[in-house]
Amino acid sequence: MSEPEITSLQNPRVKQVLALRDRRDRDKTGLFIIEGYRELLRALEGQWKIDILFYCPSLFLGSNEGALIQRIAAHGGKTLECSPAVFQKLSYRDRPDGLVGIAPKKSESFSEFTQNLAEKKNPFLVVAEAIEKPGNLGTILRSSDAVALDGLIVCDRCTDIYNPNVVRASVGTLFTVPVVEAKGEETLQWLKSQGIAILAATPSAEKEFTQVDMRGPLAIAVGTEQLGLSERWMKNADLQVRIPMHGVADSLNVAMATTLLLYEALRQRC
Amino acid sequence: MSEPEITSLQNPRVKQVLALRDRRDRDKTGLFIIEGYRELLRALEGQWKIDILFYCPSLFLGSNEGALIQRIAAHGGKTLECSPAVFQKLSYRDRPDGLVGIAPKKSESFSEFTQNLAEKKNPFLVVAEAIEKPGNLGTILRSSDAVALDGLIVCDRCTDIYNPNVVRASVGTLFTVPVVEAKGEETLQWLKSQGIAILAATPSAEKEFTQVDMRGPLAIAVGTEQLGLSERWMKNADLQVRIPMHGVADSLNVAMATTLLLYEALRQRC
Repeated sequence: MSEPEITSLQNPRVKQVLALRDRRDRDKTGLFIIEGYRELLRALEGQWKIDILFYCPSLFLGSNEGALIQRIAAHGGKTLECSPAVFQKLSYRDRPDGLVGIAPKKSESFSEFTQNLAEKKNPFLVVAEAIEKPGNLGTILRSSDAVALDGLIVCDRCTDIYNPNVVRASVGTLFTVPVVEAKGEETLQWLKSQGIAILAATPSAEKEFTQVDMRGPLAIAVGTEQLGLSERWMKNADLQVRIPMHGVADSLNVAMATTLLLYEALRQRC
Repeated sequence: MSEPEITSLQNPRVKQVLALRDRRDRDKTGLFIIEGYRELLRALEGQWKIDILFYCPSLFLGSNEGALIQRIAAHGGKTLECSPAVFQKLSYRDRPDGLVGIAPKKSESFSEFTQNLAEKKNPFLVVAEAIEKPGNLGTILRSSDAVALDGLIVCDRCTDIYNPNVVRASVGTLFTVPVVEAKGEETLQWLKSQGIAILAATPSAEKEFTQVDMRGPLAIAVGTEQLGLSERWMKNADLQVRIPMHGVADSLNVAMATTLLLYEALRQRC
């Protein structure tokens, strides 16, 4: 049995991973962290390249990890065994499962993203404006995957889509949902040029969300946790809807509101 | 202008608050932490007693904090001004708003909880079994408030409802939604004795969640993030429903699934 390649917390590879928890480092290097068996598997399924895989067999939870490691190696990824102490340091989780990868971010531009949508007869999109909490963005991705959304446009980002907590909350659907970061203005212009209806939820709308027609080309726009959608999106919305609120609070969590709108659209479009 | 009462991090009151982040201390003392203007206001509105309020004027975000402090004092609460350094230590948040309270937990038993429901002609309940993440439990409370749920029964708890992250994610709806912690078995027996239909979501169900009748006495049962509902609830469910999944992931986040079921029930019951 061979010795782990990395046994020292001072190893430069360890520092590289820890640095990638910081957005500035992700922006600078173009790399990000993918932790966990399920997340790495979905990244492979989504044709993402894993540059480096750190693994620690004593932490594995299942029996398929060996196959995953081989698959990453077969695609040219470097695989490095770590001691448990080193792996605990690398991991971002309470209960690590012995697998952490580093991968290049996607370099797709907004125009490439929109070109890929050109073949969709009846596009079904979400615009998420300035979402602050990575957990919310990840959960929106998970619900977007569930309804087979054609694309998620993250506008005027507050948290970037490669934040480790986005990857985690998305349970790897970041790698399967078409997603792009874009400016609000270019997104709005493009949606208008394509005749895609913008739907915004607001407490002041007359109609409930189950009472409007969502069967055509549709972009559901959702905004920041604190303030909701900006004026740009509210005033350009083709459809305004209200989610009924019968309690003391005046709004739902943004990921809840998005999920309700996504499933209502799915119900109508199926 | 008076000096803050608490300026030392060694003050025993500071230690008391920090200790209450730990469940064992909450269980032992019967107290818990309520942080934030909105949360404290909702606690007052829900007739909860605040024993002690720590405040730090330089961190206030609005102009109504003075009235809140007076209201708490008028109800017999002790109010203590803290220096900014002390308050930063007390606060559980990235951006504290200068208000942290300590309050007694509710001592309502399951039988008192069910007695309070006796007047409801057509009860609308949620059973949340062994939810692990405080954020999910808090979000379920927030959605429960939004649909004016009659009661949330937290069974076989993994996280307790007084966890600071539950209070936060619930944005104070913990204080307005009738909620109780109970054993799974007693909950099941009571629901059966009352003729309240148990609805469970499972991928293997034939009918979609929008295709079953949710208009009668209803308890929506949802289970742990990892494993879903236990056998006890699955085999005793009167209604089984499926949430359509069109992507690569096989399930939604538990709070998303609960919110979809709550709003479908609301749509049918209104």
